[in-house]
Amino acid sequence: MTVWLNGALYAPESARIDPSDRGFTLGDGVFETIRLSGGKPMHLARHLRRLRDGAHMLDIPVVYDNAAIAAAILAVISARGLMEGAARLTLTRGPAPRGVTPPVSPTPTLLVVAGTSPLAAASVRAIISGSTRRNQASPLSRIKSLNYLDNVLARQEATRQAADEALLLNTQGALAEASAANLFLLRHGMLVTPSLADGALPGIMRALLIERCGAVERSICPDDLFAADGVFLSSSLGLRIVSEVDGRRVRRNDDRILECVDAAAIE
Amino acid sequence: MTVWLNGALYAPESARIDPSDRGFTLGDGVFETIRLSGGKPMHLARHLRRLRDGAHMLDIPVVYDNAAIAAAILAVISARGLMEGAARLTLTRGPAPRGVTPPVSPTPTLLVVAGTSPLAAASVRAIISGSTRRNQASPLSRIKSLNYLDNVLARQEATRQAADEALLLNTQGALAEASAANLFLLRHGMLVTPSLADGALPGIMRALLIERCGAVERSICPDDLFAADGVFLSSSLGLRIVSEVDGRRVRRNDDRILECVDAAAIE
Repeated sequence: MTVWLNGALYAPESARIDPSDRGFTLGDGVFETIRLSGGKPMHLARHLRRLRDGAHMLDIPVVYDNAAIAAAILAVISARGLMEGAARLTLTRGPAPRGVTPPVSPTPTLLVVAGTSPLAAASVRAIISGSTRRNQASPLSRIKSLNYLDNVLARQEATRQAADEALLLNTQGALAEASAANLFLLRHGMLVTPSLADGALPGIMRALLIERCGAVERSICPDDLFAADGVFLSSSLGLRIVSEVDGRRVRRNDDRILECVDAAAIE
Repeated sequence: MTVWLNGALYAPESARIDPSDRGFTLGDGVFETIRLSGGKPMHLARHLRRLRDGAHMLDIPVVYDNAAIAAAILAVISARGLMEGAARLTLTRGPAPRGVTPPVSPTPTLLVVAGTSPLAAASVRAIISGSTRRNQASPLSRIKSLNYLDNVLARQEATRQAADEALLLNTQGALAEASAANLFLLRHGMLVTPSLADGALPGIMRALLIERCGAVERSICPDDLFAADGVFLSSSLGLRIVSEVDGRRVRRNDDRILECVDAAAIE
């Protein structure tokens, strides 16, 4: 295994994050998880655009251009001989003295790791998290930041209930997303997904499903899940069909869903 | 400078956080900032109780007992010959494979650092953040987690407006806290502070002001700031009196406030 950190390749046990890195001390950064297929990162331009959008919101400079980041990913996956799997980019504001105020001239940290990715389950049992809510009133809901603990809490809740995934409500009671995926319904032949205003992360696969399959953004409440003709979760690593929510079966229409997603996933 | 990491002392440049540490990749952990006075950590038992409460909520094991953690803090401050300043404890779920689901048997990371702390300004100009809201509907609002980006965004907004601090509203429009402190008003001789239900972090100094000075928890809206006889911010590192909010002066009653806080701060 090899990782790329701030311009150089390392064995993972040699790569060192400084204890004062604001990614570690405050979750001050953003990340991307990118599917690898045929030895190449999928939809890389979109991932890098989102990474830069998030960095811009947080005012973290990105000191590498897209070609350099692409080369870093390829260096890591070729060192590992990896054809299929997932790469992760992590960008933080870097080491800094104690305190909330960011340093005026940060030295950001950029880390690239990659590995195999377990095959996604064909179908998942989901719960609706009762322990936490997604904050649609924070701009962080619109970037892929390192502040992932609400999602971790929701996933832990799912695990405790022997479910695979948790759906998060926003603070107003509308569904926002799953703990590591966007939420879609199939209704009267149309794909529906929560809007960014409802707290959905602007997922890459979500955007492709909107652009290429005509998915529409609309508020979704828990009852809508059971009225739908199908429910699925999308992420850059693939799609998972939801078989039940809170122990209640939801209808399935796998063929139609798979057809949409095949259309969306083409590079 | 010396830091303590997982049982050993290091020069800071030798201390290494693993790139797969979930504190770094997901903000999956908690921290404490502790005032040092006369070479000793102040209110340490309360800080360790809050650290353990947060770790318990996240299901992160704390493998050191309080005496061991106290010894680690003393080792760091005595290596530095530090009498006054601040120590920080950071506890994370430690290194783990990619993914949201926590490992079944984590190997947590515990880091202790310490340093001098700049003297708090006697008075601060505050803004009310217009860019983000605190999520009182998440249990994370009740622990001191590493997910600190809403506070960072609010502080950045204050800095851009040449202010010192930002107050955060919750998603319902009530004031919750400042970006790195709790909020208090003085009204008719009584101290008032937002409740935990409104999204206030359960601050150590806040608890002391409730226990020892009779401060009461109550919802506070922005207008209340200008009707108050005094407004101040409390944190473990001290108290700062607010001189203006969003460019409007607030009344001051420094003597009464300082008297309360002196009573609360006694070890």
